[in-house]
Amino acid sequence: MPKQPIRVELSSTKKPKPQSDQLEFGKIFTDHMFVMDYSIDKGWYDPRIIPYQAIPMDPASMVYHYGQSVFEGLKAYVSEDQKILLFRPEKNMERLNRSNDRLCIPQIDTETVLEGLNELIRIDKDWVPDAEGTSLYIRPFIISTEPYLGVAPSSTYKLIIILSPVGSYYKEGIHPVKIAVENEFVRAVKGGTGNAKTAGNYASSLKAQQVAETKGFSQVLWLDGIEKKYIEEVGSMNIFFKINGEIVTPELNGSILEGITRNSVLELLKHWEIPVTERKISIDELIEAHQSGELEEIFGTGTAAVISPVGELIYHDQPYVIQNGQTGEVSKKLYEAITGIQKGTQPDIFGWTVEVDSVVKQA
Amino acid sequence: MPKQPIRVELSSTKKPKPQSDQLEFGKIFTDHMFVMDYSIDKGWYDPRIIPYQAIPMDPASMVYHYGQSVFEGLKAYVSEDQKILLFRPEKNMERLNRSNDRLCIPQIDTETVLEGLNELIRIDKDWVPDAEGTSLYIRPFIISTEPYLGVAPSSTYKLIIILSPVGSYYKEGIHPVKIAVENEFVRAVKGGTGNAKTAGNYASSLKAQQVAETKGFSQVLWLDGIEKKYIEEVGSMNIFFKINGEIVTPELNGSILEGITRNSVLELLKHWEIPVTERKISIDELIEAHQSGELEEIFGTGTAAVISPVGELIYHDQPYVIQNGQTGEVSKKLYEAITGIQKGTQPDIFGWTVEVDSVVKQA
Repeated sequence: MPKQPIRVELSSTKKPKPQSDQLEFGKIFTDHMFVMDYSIDKGWYDPRIIPYQAIPMDPASMVYHYGQSVFEGLKAYVSEDQKILLFRPEKNMERLNRSNDRLCIPQIDTETVLEGLNELIRIDKDWVPDAEGTSLYIRPFIISTEPYLGVAPSSTYKLIIILSPVGSYYKEGIHPVKIAVENEFVRAVKGGTGNAKTAGNYASSLKAQQVAETKGFSQVLWLDGIEKKYIEEVGSMNIFFKINGEIVTPELNGSILEGITRNSVLELLKHWEIPVTERKISIDELIEAHQSGELEEIFGTGTAAVISPVGELIYHDQPYVIQNGQTGEVSKKLYEAITGIQKGTQPDIFGWTVEVDSVVKQA
Repeated sequence: MPKQPIRVELSSTKKPKPQSDQLEFGKIFTDHMFVMDYSIDKGWYDPRIIPYQAIPMDPASMVYHYGQSVFEGLKAYVSEDQKILLFRPEKNMERLNRSNDRLCIPQIDTETVLEGLNELIRIDKDWVPDAEGTSLYIRPFIISTEPYLGVAPSSTYKLIIILSPVGSYYKEGIHPVKIAVENEFVRAVKGGTGNAKTAGNYASSLKAQQVAETKGFSQVLWLDGIEKKYIEEVGSMNIFFKINGEIVTPELNGSILEGITRNSVLELLKHWEIPVTERKISIDELIEAHQSGELEEIFGTGTAAVISPVGELIYHDQPYVIQNGQTGEVSKKLYEAITGIQKGTQPDIFGWTVEVDSVVKQA
């Protein structure tokens, strides 16, 4: 697939911008969006930037009925010298194509989409917030659009990128959260779609999350769907444990999402020569480690929260306090390192950040 | 929830109707649709019939990202005396509310929706086809519409009913199909969403179906996601086996959809005093029954196909021919009984059909 030229249609009006220090997560969107269509005859065609707008969709559009939908989430940050930095965007594009494969959605030309994203941010650059903890959240997604009720892959699709200036994902911020081990509901199983970033995984997770919230917990800790024994993810994040000085995270097994923050954490830990292992880890092992005083830290990793320390684990109604309910040393160090690289205040030793071309944000 | 009055806005133009004998499945839609909205303040409100039309949707609408989507499928038939009959529509409404519960979508008032469906069919009555094997396929569905990127249940929804005059679902018609046992992909697992009629289940199934088709098979036979041992469903249908004179179907276990045709088949078999059991059945038991000559019939059941006989089963690349590749006696008898009741040519001994009020179709 050759890279395609991008058409631009600017909005004639500009929406009012929110105050940087009053941002929530994912409720406000910028003035423009990137759109590209797919048909069997043309392949992906007409990449374009147009004013942010509602899209007329036939009620028979397949996405409503058979859920072919994949997405990504990444962020842009303003650096101290007022450049706009993206964090490992090529990783998101690669994962989007892996999700596409699982959902029978045609592969995209990642260069065209990255170019479209670059251009979109250039146009909406004044929307990138710069207050502490804020960023521009980027949501690329693909949906099936053919109006047809047969159960089959759609013959037409839309890829869309929307942008949202955001504050912290969790209202509790970087403070440690309470999580509860989920015993009834299952997020995903090997042979299913757990390692694809597709809408159905999130739909399936809502019920457990709702039950957990009524009990006062922030997130659920997902166990594997087969033996209900091995730990998989926490909420919509990957999870890490520090046990007796060693960091452990569940190995990628086909039902766990291959998180980009997860990967960055692994690379940083290796660079720091902190022992880290990807392997199966059971809830029993975790409880035993807690009882012997060896469970030193728990934290989730994801684009929205970056690092989310866990202060308390609930299993069979029994609370297990972690690190006295405080943020652990490794969690803190990782959060500072990753957000530092993302915002350009720390040296980008891995070459993770990508500068949005020729943009200097006006102060 | 009290039943609500339904507003009607008729279309000023009429689309050309397709020839009854040239219908495909789910590609053509009638002149009108039923729509109802939900907000936390108002509950479900403004039930209305409006011209069939595309609906403007914000690109941040939650259904595209987190997949809160449930649906139903049922059919309307023309009887010999030109009445329009629905088949057990209250069962679909009950199941829709069970799906709603699993997907954190608010419960609907089933009376309002059934009244809306009745009125919609009354208005589009000339679209109900009457050629042999045809019917009006009815697709009620609910989607989340709040423009918000946080992973949480939406605060707004749309319920829509669209109608499509259809021919047979399977191009092969009532002829027996080839199905292949799926060993890699999993449709659903206990604790997941397998027993809800939600988009994600179908999205997840496409890949296995696509692989099966390239090998010349019509459908995949799904095994349980835990042991990969017990039979669950076939394609998007429930499945039945006749083994040594007894009919067996997998018991409802939380990951199998509670099919309405499945239920009708069970009731008919009991009425006919044919022995029938709902229980776990393993693929090994099935292969053994074939080898001892006791596997007499296999058939799928679902709204779209009604009864779909299986002529060949493929397991580990080995073909097992069923009933010499012909439609079995029980499959035939069930198909004739159910379609007979649906079309009013056989006595409705169970009270399954519901007449659309005051409609006599013009010949």
